[in-house]
Amino acid sequence: MDFAHMLEEERAVIERMLDACLPPEGEFPPVIHEAIRYSALGGGKRIRPILARATARTLGHDPERLAKTACAVEYVHSSSLVLDDLPSMDNAETRRGRPTVHRAFGVATAILSADALLMHAFRLVAENGIEVGADGRSLATAISELATAVGSYGMVGGQHVDLETGGLPGATVETVEYIQSKKTGSLFVVTGTIGATLMGASEETRGALAAYARNVGLAYQIVDDILDAESDTTTLGKDVRQDAGKPTFVTLRGVGGARSLAAQLVEDARSALGTLDVDTTALEALAGYCVDRVC
Amino acid sequence: MDFAHMLEEERAVIERMLDACLPPEGEFPPVIHEAIRYSALGGGKRIRPILARATARTLGHDPERLAKTACAVEYVHSSSLVLDDLPSMDNAETRRGRPTVHRAFGVATAILSADALLMHAFRLVAENGIEVGADGRSLATAISELATAVGSYGMVGGQHVDLETGGLPGATVETVEYIQSKKTGSLFVVTGTIGATLMGASEETRGALAAYARNVGLAYQIVDDILDAESDTTTLGKDVRQDAGKPTFVTLRGVGGARSLAAQLVEDARSALGTLDVDTTALEALAGYCVDRVC
Repeated sequence: MDFAHMLEEERAVIERMLDACLPPEGEFPPVIHEAIRYSALGGGKRIRPILARATARTLGHDPERLAKTACAVEYVHSSSLVLDDLPSMDNAETRRGRPTVHRAFGVATAILSADALLMHAFRLVAENGIEVGADGRSLATAISELATAVGSYGMVGGQHVDLETGGLPGATVETVEYIQSKKTGSLFVVTGTIGATLMGASEETRGALAAYARNVGLAYQIVDDILDAESDTTTLGKDVRQDAGKPTFVTLRGVGGARSLAAQLVEDARSALGTLDVDTTALEALAGYCVDRVC
Repeated sequence: MDFAHMLEEERAVIERMLDACLPPEGEFPPVIHEAIRYSALGGGKRIRPILARATARTLGHDPERLAKTACAVEYVHSSSLVLDDLPSMDNAETRRGRPTVHRAFGVATAILSADALLMHAFRLVAENGIEVGADGRSLATAISELATAVGSYGMVGGQHVDLETGGLPGATVETVEYIQSKKTGSLFVVTGTIGATLMGASEETRGALAAYARNVGLAYQIVDDILDAESDTTTLGKDVRQDAGKPTFVTLRGVGGARSLAAQLVEDARSALGTLDVDTTALEALAGYCVDRVC
């Protein structure tokens, strides 16, 4: 089975997991739970749960045992998109071909459902920690690292600086690196490590996975920006040229420079795996996919 | 020393703790951290950390060992107030005599800083769990209960129903009970139990503290509504008659009926403590203060 076909099978499994791990339809209050399901089950490439499951397998764990945690990181991602789209932030009208959450449910419900989804993610990680027998220190590390990835030193910080500098012509490479490492990189790093953390992996293993995931995350984001600049709506399934005027590695270095950088990051990601004493073929292939993809 | 004087001393200790447990001023990105400190250090009666510390002492623990957790529940409360005040929700202009966070920093920064404060709270509970040697199950229970208290089955759910029914004349007792038990009660219950949970208390102890805190929380909220209806701005230090048109126990049962209900809840809170085999004098006094207070 080729890698693209395997990814499709993974995505089908993940869509079912994402549905099953949410509060069921009709839970009270119904509108909040409808908004949660609308944002979390509205499609997407599901790269984060794919990464979480590939990491679990690489370490010899059954990914089903860590299903709640794989869902949790995707819910955190969905939650952040709801906030990014708000009128006070990017003021986006559509996402993945449908009205954004605040357009479908109103701004207040969008904000509340984003927070609810985030809280649900933390509950799932805690529950999963009990299920896999995580000790106190391992669970504390997992929770603390996830909270840090989302908060002011992570995605919130990145989004804030992105909003502050958005459209400014003078954004430096350092600013773009900060924004992308926080908005995208932080959650990738936790996605790559959190299962290992709950299962009590060594600091060396966690460090190697973190370095791998950080590089993969940045490469993934750069390719997103390249596709936004080069592709068309039909291929991509979403509006293109969304980043015009926003500082990215494409605006700073051109498409060629950005592509070289992404390729280098994938090499760095593969090198980081070299210290692991397990078969890392699947993770290496996943890193390659992140830059070779065309949508 | 009388109880009122003791509360003042507790509040002074708590204000220092709340400052010390936040990221320091000037942390990058500076505006987010300024907004976090503005909302968390802007005053308030600090009833939640007072309750957390009183519970710790009652169980024989040094409250300083659980300081991060006591701060965490207050930060969660502060975070929820920032969202409640937003233009899309209560559209409040001032809180505690100062511009609300969104008026001082803008809507986007208010939303992001509220999320950052919430994430900081979860990080503190996890860190505190390691410090007190909580096992995996105890820490998971603490995190899960805190997340549930904030999310769609807790404060978010309560706020959503409050916004849906706000100003509707036909709100029933059941709706008001739902809103108050979720918006206020949920976090009181976790505040009363989370330290005990981290310290490995029995289910019986946790249950008694939960029942106590649930009743105290509802009594506290009812007295807030009575003071809003009866007191004046000078005594209360904030605008009054904010709830005019909002369904509360005062609008449903009148001031007399609401006062009787609060007194009954305090009796129930004291009764719940009866199963604990420790000196509960301080918690009983705290319950009494919650209804006897005049501001």
